[in-house]
Parts: sequence; C-alpha cells; structure tokens
Amino acid sequence: MGLDEFDRIKKYFRPLASIERGSLNLLDDAAVLPVDDASKIVISTDALVEGIHFFGEEEVDLIAQKSLRTNLSDMAAMGATPWVYTLSLSLGPVIKGTLDQWLTSFVKGLKKDQDKYDVGLVGGDTVTGSGPTMISITILGRADPRGVITRNGASVYDDIYVSGTIGDSAAGLKIIKEPVNYLADSDQLYLKCRYYLPNPRVKLGQALVGIASAAMDISDGLIQDLGHLCSASSLGAIVNWPMLPLSKGVEQLLHKKTIPTSLIVNGGDDYELLFTAPKRLRTKVEAIAKASDVVVTRIGHMINGSGVSLLDKTDRLINSIGTGFKHD
Amino acid sequence: MGLDEFDRIKKYFRPLASIERGSLNLLDDAAVLPVDDASKIVISTDALVEGIHFFGEEEVDLIAQKSLRTNLSDMAAMGATPWVYTLSLSLGPVIKGTLDQWLTSFVKGLKKDQDKYDVGLVGGDTVTGSGPTMISITILGRADPRGVITRNGASVYDDIYVSGTIGDSAAGLKIIKEPVNYLADSDQLYLKCRYYLPNPRVKLGQALVGIASAAMDISDGLIQDLGHLCSASSLGAIVNWPMLPLSKGVEQLLHKKTIPTSLIVNGGDDYELLFTAPKRLRTKVEAIAKASDVVVTRIGHMINGSGVSLLDKTDRLINSIGTGFKHD
Repeated sequence: MGLDEFDRIKKYFRPLASIERGSLNLLDDAAVLPVDDASKIVISTDALVEGIHFFGEEEVDLIAQKSLRTNLSDMAAMGATPWVYTLSLSLGPVIKGTLDQWLTSFVKGLKKDQDKYDVGLVGGDTVTGSGPTMISITILGRADPRGVITRNGASVYDDIYVSGTIGDSAAGLKIIKEPVNYLADSDQLYLKCRYYLPNPRVKLGQALVGIASAAMDISDGLIQDLGHLCSASSLGAIVNWPMLPLSKGVEQLLHKKTIPTSLIVNGGDDYELLFTAPKRLRTKVEAIAKASDVVVTRIGHMINGSGVSLLDKTDRLINSIGTGFKHD
Repeated sequence: MGLDEFDRIKKYFRPLASIERGSLNLLDDAAVLPVDDASKIVISTDALVEGIHFFGEEEVDLIAQKSLRTNLSDMAAMGATPWVYTLSLSLGPVIKGTLDQWLTSFVKGLKKDQDKYDVGLVGGDTVTGSGPTMISITILGRADPRGVITRNGASVYDDIYVSGTIGDSAAGLKIIKEPVNYLADSDQLYLKCRYYLPNPRVKLGQALVGIASAAMDISDGLIQDLGHLCSASSLGAIVNWPMLPLSKGVEQLLHKKTIPTSLIVNGGDDYELLFTAPKRLRTKVEAIAKASDVVVTRIGHMINGSGVSLLDKTDRLINSIGTGFKHD
C-alpha cells in the first residue's frame, strides 16, 4: 500500500483532529485536553497486536505489562502523572494453556503495574474471536499544573539527552530470534528483558517539567524519533555516536558484529526518554537524573537546519543510517 | 470456555477497577472520573471486530459511524455531553476496493458524525496486519454539572421507559441474512438502516439528567439490559408486552412469524435508551421527549424483587424469553 503509519495519520486522520480540544494535531505522544481552568488531562492510545508486537509465546503477564507500559511511556514523555486507563481486549485462540490461565496471568501483570505506577482500570471491552489477539489501552494522565512537555519546544543549541541505554530492546529481540553463545547469561537475560518489558521513565518525565524544552519517548528508533522532535521544533540535530549510552551486552554484540551500528539508532521499542534542555540547565538535569535514579546521557545538540546528523568520534558524518524502525 | 463477557469482566477485571477514580466497578455504561471539584469526565470504550460486529461487506462509512455511535450511545446513557475520542484501528486485508478507498470512506463516516455530534478526534493508533479488522474507540464526555445518570438509582414503582422502537436492529440483521419478499422496500430499508446505523439518543440523555432515576443503553437486548439495571438498583421489573414500541416493519415480521417475539426483547444492537423515572414526573418525561424529538414509551414499572417479568395483554407471564443477546 505504500503508506506507513505516519503518512496514514497525516493523510487520513489529521484532518479529523480537534486542535481546540487538545489533539496537538496528532503530532505528539499524547493529547492535552483542557478540562477546565484548573485541570488538563493527557490522553494517549497504544495497541499491541499478536504477530506484530508480540508473538503469543511470551509470558502473558509480560504482554500485559508491556501493553500498559508503552502507554505509560507516553505519559512519561509529556511529564504527566498516570491516572486511569481503559482496556479493549480482542482475544484470539490461546497458544499456551487455557483461556482461564491466559486471563489470570494477564490480569496479574496488569495488577502488578497498576500498583507500581499507581494507575487504575476504569473501563473496557472484551471480545473473543478468531484472533489475532489485540490489546488496546487508552491511558489518561493528569498534566502537571506547570504544564506538559511537548515535542516542539526545543531551541537551537539545546542539549539532547536520552535516559537509560539505547538499542537494548532491538538487540534483545535479535538474540531471542537468533541465540548467541558468547554472551554471559546475565547479559542475555538483561537484553531480552529490555525487549519484553520496557521501563517507562514516568518519574523522570514528571521531574523534567519546566526543565526540558522538548521531550518524547523513543519507540521507533532514536534517529527516526529525534527526527520527529526536530521537525516539530523546526530544527535539526547533531548526535555524537561515541556519546550514545550502550549496555555491556550491546557493546559485545557490536564488537562481534552480531548487530550492526544502525540497529542501535534505528531499532524499535527502547521506550527511553529523549529530551532537550538549555545548556545552562545541565547541572539541574544531572540532579534530576540522580533524584529519579535514572542514568541520563547528553548525546548531542540542536542546530539550525533540519534532520538528524550522526557523527563519529572524528566528527565525520556516519551515513549508514536508515530511516528508523517502523512498527506499523 | 463457558464464560461470557459479563462473567469475564466480573471474574478477571473487576478486581482491577479503581472505585475511587470513578470506575463504578465496571458496572455502568461508562466510568465517571472526578477530575477536580468543578469537573467530571465520563469515559467509555467499545470495540467492533470484523466477523463479529460487522462483516466487511457493509459500506465502510457506516462501519465507522457505527463504531463511533455505539460509544456515543454510552455517553447518552450517562446523560453526558460527548467531547473527544481516540481511535485504535487494526486493519486487516480490505475486502472491497483498495486500502486507500477503505480509509477514505472510513474517515468520511467519522467526519460526518464528528460534525453531527460535536465530538473531536484527539489521538489514536493504527496498525496493519493479517486481520480481522478491529476498531476500538474510547470516548470522553463531559458530565452535566448536575450529575450523571447511572443504572443503580431506580426506586420501586418508578416507570420504565424506552426511546424509539425496539427489535428493529435484530429484525434488520435477520432480513439482511434472509431476505423476505412481502415487506415494502421502505420498511426493509428502514430496518436494515437500524442495524447498520444506531441512533444514539444523546440529546434525550442529556435532558433526562435530574429526571431519570436510572438509565442505560440497550445493546444486548431489552430483557438482559433491564436485568442489569434491576440488579444494579436491587429491584425487579414488570414489562408489559403490549406497551412495547414496535416499528411497522417489525410488526409485519412478527405477524408473518418471520421473527419470534423473543427476538424483539432479546435481540441486540438497539442502542435505544432504557430509563426509569418516578411516576410524578410523567408529564416532564413527555415534555422532554417532545423537546428532544424522540418518541419515548412507558413500558412497565419497577417492583420489589429481582429479575424482569414480561407480561402479555392479560397480564400473564410470558415465559418464552431467553437470556438476551450475547455479543461477546
């Protein structure tokens, strides 16, 4: 069909979007609904489909948690406080065990993360059919009274940061599909867990309100997502490859050439925060990272222009970068 | 598996529901979220799945409209004012025409009803896969400052009312599947349209706030849904068959025994309002119906006890009533 999700949204759905009711033109991680003078609600929807986002052989509680966490990551990106969610569950045939076991495990996973992230179920719809199983969650968060962090606020020369390490999830998926024997078990487990279970940076996002000039979560690869932040902010970005935070496992996989460099910056499912902040706030960003107990790494800066340029250690442009991972 | 949707929700999902954040224990048409002292938001989710709720051969704009309208009907049932919605669309292979034509028509349908019901798109997620196509909408409405109408407020001897006519949609589906030759084209078209395109009673619902003691929309058949209202209100109900409002087409189909009586009260997809109100407010209810331009019919009354009793014209109990339509 030729159109990817971004084109599809732009062509078909953007004309339906209500700007005055906070859609942000469907260009941000979430919409910001002006309820009244005192309150804004942040809302986002994310679906996981069997065969595309999961394969039915994972632990079911992890599938449930991932469904909720991809949505929580959108709240993190806006600096919002997760509040409630609705669940739309279309159940196909169960691959392992009984439907009762599946649902019991699914609910267990949701319960665990409801408690961890203080978010409550308030509605839903369940259907059983021929499959594939589809899990669609709509999450609502409360906007910080000081505001939300959108993608379009970056200024030229702002620093660019990411939380955690990147490429872990794509590397994890790679070794799930094609096991390697040279990586320590603990490193393998770490990378696989990073794929199965994102770690939404909710507290970090909240703490960055008023500090970060722009933010989003990385779900389709650093380069592609930073490209969206750039275009929303009408700027370009320089990213320095040597500054990118990589896990031990990913470094080994790169060293052995099991994964290409491009996977790090184009692989999907990082669910780390990507944000910009003025240079003068560097010590504040460091303090916030420390207080949030999340490693935050400065990886480049915003420039006049457009698009993302990835530079190697001699500041030469690395050209071998694709256009990012497309989940569809 | 043995469990229907109601059992599934009760067993697995009710324990997850956040009462203090307005879930109403997942027992009502929508949740009522307490945003702040000034505002409450009403939220509901409804999904349509190809092969279950539609068959892929309908006009695509009608599928889009039905998706939105089943959600709008939940807002009507609460007396809330529709505000915004998010769309989660998992697209399977298109049966007729191209994907571009499908999406163009789908968006056209949404646009038409966005304008008609003054509701705006604020977010979504689209995925293409192997199908079946699934459309999940989460709708948010603004609660009337005077409150919302829930299912649990009926009092003994309250009148029971329905809007419009009932059984049309089930009859429409029946003649879509098994055409009849004795019904006038206009009556056939009317019944089919009633199946394809519900008419959510949004204005009526809003006008009933402060008047109706309990309300819900009829989606799974009058008897089953009234049963839910009864159990929420800890009462029983008497419904008088001769008082049920039937369309001309349905009367003919009944007369020719093309459809059984039970289809009228157990058939799904009516999307009419079912509500109760104190006897002393009869003239007010009549005036509201007139002002809302919707026929409203008194069909029975609430009693001490439990369950729904359907009486014939001699006030004898009609026993031939099943347990309602289960969409799953």
